Amino acid sequence: MALSPLAPAAFPDLPVIDGVTFAAGAAGVKYQNRTDVMLALLAPGSTIAGVFTRSATRSANVLDCQAKMGSDAQAGAAIIVNSGNSNAFTGKAGDGSVQRICEGVAVRAHLPANRVYTSSTGVIGEPLPDDRITAKLDDLMAAQSPDGIAEAARAIMTTDTFPKGSAQTVTIDGTPVQIAGIAKGSGMIAPDMATMLVYIFTDAQIGHGALQSLLSRLTDRTFNNITVDSDTSTSDTLLMGATGTSGVDVTDNAAFADALHAVMLDLSHQVVRDGEGATKFVTVNVTGAANDTDARLVAMATANSPLVKTAIAGEDPNWGRIVMAVGKSGAQADRDRLTIRLGDLVLARDGWRAPEYSEDACAAYMKGQNIDINVDLGLGDGTCTVWTCDLTHEYIRINADYRS
Amino acid sequence: MALSPLAPAAFPDLPVIDGVTFAAGAAGVKYQNRTDVMLALLAPGSTIAGVFTRSATRSANVLDCQAKMGSDAQAGAAIIVNSGNSNAFTGKAGDGSVQRICEGVAVRAHLPANRVYTSSTGVIGEPLPDDRITAKLDDLMAAQSPDGIAEAARAIMTTDTFPKGSAQTVTIDGTPVQIAGIAKGSGMIAPDMATMLVYIFTDAQIGHGALQSLLSRLTDRTFNNITVDSDTSTSDTLLMGATGTSGVDVTDNAAFADALHAVMLDLSHQVVRDGEGATKFVTVNVTGAANDTDARLVAMATANSPLVKTAIAGEDPNWGRIVMAVGKSGAQADRDRLTIRLGDLVLARDGWRAPEYSEDACAAYMKGQNIDINVDLGLGDGTCTVWTCDLTHEYIRINADYRS
Repeated sequence: MALSPLAPAAFPDLPVIDGVTFAAGAAGVKYQNRTDVMLALLAPGSTIAGVFTRSATRSANVLDCQAKMGSDAQAGAAIIVNSGNSNAFTGKAGDGSVQRICEGVAVRAHLPANRVYTSSTGVIGEPLPDDRITAKLDDLMAAQSPDGIAEAARAIMTTDTFPKGSAQTVTIDGTPVQIAGIAKGSGMIAPDMATMLVYIFTDAQIGHGALQSLLSRLTDRTFNNITVDSDTSTSDTLLMGATGTSGVDVTDNAAFADALHAVMLDLSHQVVRDGEGATKFVTVNVTGAANDTDARLVAMATANSPLVKTAIAGEDPNWGRIVMAVGKSGAQADRDRLTIRLGDLVLARDGWRAPEYSEDACAAYMKGQNIDINVDLGLGDGTCTVWTCDLTHEYIRINADYRS
Repeated sequence: MALSPLAPAAFPDLPVIDGVTFAAGAAGVKYQNRTDVMLALLAPGSTIAGVFTRSATRSANVLDCQAKMGSDAQAGAAIIVNSGNSNAFTGKAGDGSVQRICEGVAVRAHLPANRVYTSSTGVIGEPLPDDRITAKLDDLMAAQSPDGIAEAARAIMTTDTFPKGSAQTVTIDGTPVQIAGIAKGSGMIAPDMATMLVYIFTDAQIGHGALQSLLSRLTDRTFNNITVDSDTSTSDTLLMGATGTSGVDVTDNAAFADALHAVMLDLSHQVVRDGEGATKFVTVNVTGAANDTDARLVAMATANSPLVKTAIAGEDPNWGRIVMAVGKSGAQADRDRLTIRLGDLVLARDGWRAPEYSEDACAAYMKGQNIDINVDLGLGDGTCTVWTCDLTHEYIRINADYRS
């Protein structure tokens, strides 16, 4: 798999998060000759919050994580993740796999089993060979290291073309607080694969309720606003651990929220930049909607339209397809109040093509790697921004041109 | 454009509908060297009913047709359709174009202008050169013929690879009643083009209210249940004219409703068979949903999933993607009650892969041209059937690989 043309130049230097250690190993769940399992351990007193797929067919791991949210923070915590098999739609056997992995980690890390969180990513509907994972637990315990996060980012990849990481340092009352996160995936990223997984760590001090509420709020402005192909994984998971070791309480701290937002936005954009077959990074800004719900309908209808996405791949400023997407979205719209721009170039206004429309200027704009589609509905104060990529031959090649 | 591999062997022999005449002409709206406008005239006393796109950015023609529904049936009626330009998002100028065309037909056909219905299909956002159409009206009036329907079907094509027609004869109280219909398109069928257009004619006698209600009800089981790429045109129009010349009243007649359903189903399937890049005709049957609304959510989520559609193109029985689509649909679902079959082959049951699952048998099934995906949710009596096609390289080629 060739590196995405939208990949960052390099994996960033992620800071050590005091109170968190990592190790990665090669369990051979499906892949050979690469790491496919990572174990992170968090210090006693760490707070864990999570956001999960709303799929009605979500995986055994997701259901187990959701049941454990809000458990006792006095204990430490562990996060164990495998690639190569999603343990989704694996019936009661899948529940058993999760239980055996959690017990294996709990015994070795001296944790209650309800403080062990698991994720699995890969093929749907195949029994998870959990014995291959538990056979590696002693090695993973022995190899724990505070600076193993980059290796962890690599171990959770499926057909990602680059590992994804992001960090921020925010100084609060003179004390630096660190935030570091890793992610994998881009929607249902590859044949028989699934899952966007995100893990974020900080040494800030914050209770479960406050962290969960912050995480949910920021997810609605970051990960919930990206789309590659409109297909939702059965395993999407975002887990965040706050160790509190910096001694800085960040409850209701705006600077911390901004820094966390920056990490989440960066990671969510990296997922889009690794979208299957992506050659353009597309931002859809909707303003002037009757309300935010309508703005989101228009933004998602535009970002998920195969005709809009193929036009972008073809570098074609085909704004009729954007009009189409606005029309089908279900949102309130008025032809004569709609304004559509590509970056700063006005395409349509007052119900038809803008008098200053320049085919040449728009065609030149479309050749860029970053495309901003700006839709103003002229009706109210509703806004939404969504990030996506184009739809190319490579997407079809990845998803159709072979037998799994 | 190569003929769709799913095209019927030939255009059917359509019966003459007493009270309807047709003519086609070459107005040069956009295309050269082919017909691009058709005019149908219906006898006095004809009833007209219609179903239209719900797009918030629908075309001037659609808005005009909607305003005219239910107008006086004592007058005759006319339907005039051009290809090459959709007259959508053309502002007040688009309204003027519709008005001039309607007046031109009304004067020549001795009709009130509110009995002239127009459709336009093609590029969005370009002013319609309506003078090229009105310049052809005298020719179109002079050329009217009872057996011009096949030529009319050809004139309304944009990048359709075959003209679409269907007919049924139903004998009621010993008298044969004829139904004949034509259609074009397959969703937003081609670059800068749009629109599914359908015109159905019958010599049956039926009032506007009864015909409109029958047409709306049958549309929800035919045209509203097909999808090629999930993108909704700004111009979708289905118009039906009943001349009454057979003297047979078909109000609440079940045999007539069945025959009309057969014509509408056949035409809707032909539109799917001409879907951009289609190589497989796919039927998604959902049963056992909590209600019909949920069944429709699951059927549409499956039929519109790029991952399901590329798996079908790749002849890959990748049922994990069907589980994913069920999960993301928003419908009530229970992993352990879900059954998924390909034709009669059981893939998944009781929350995981069925014990009798055979990879070889499923792979052989996927090589066929007709693919039936059967999803039973095991929860209630809700059902829905949707028809779609696969997603192939040819779709990307048609929609991305050139500059409009």
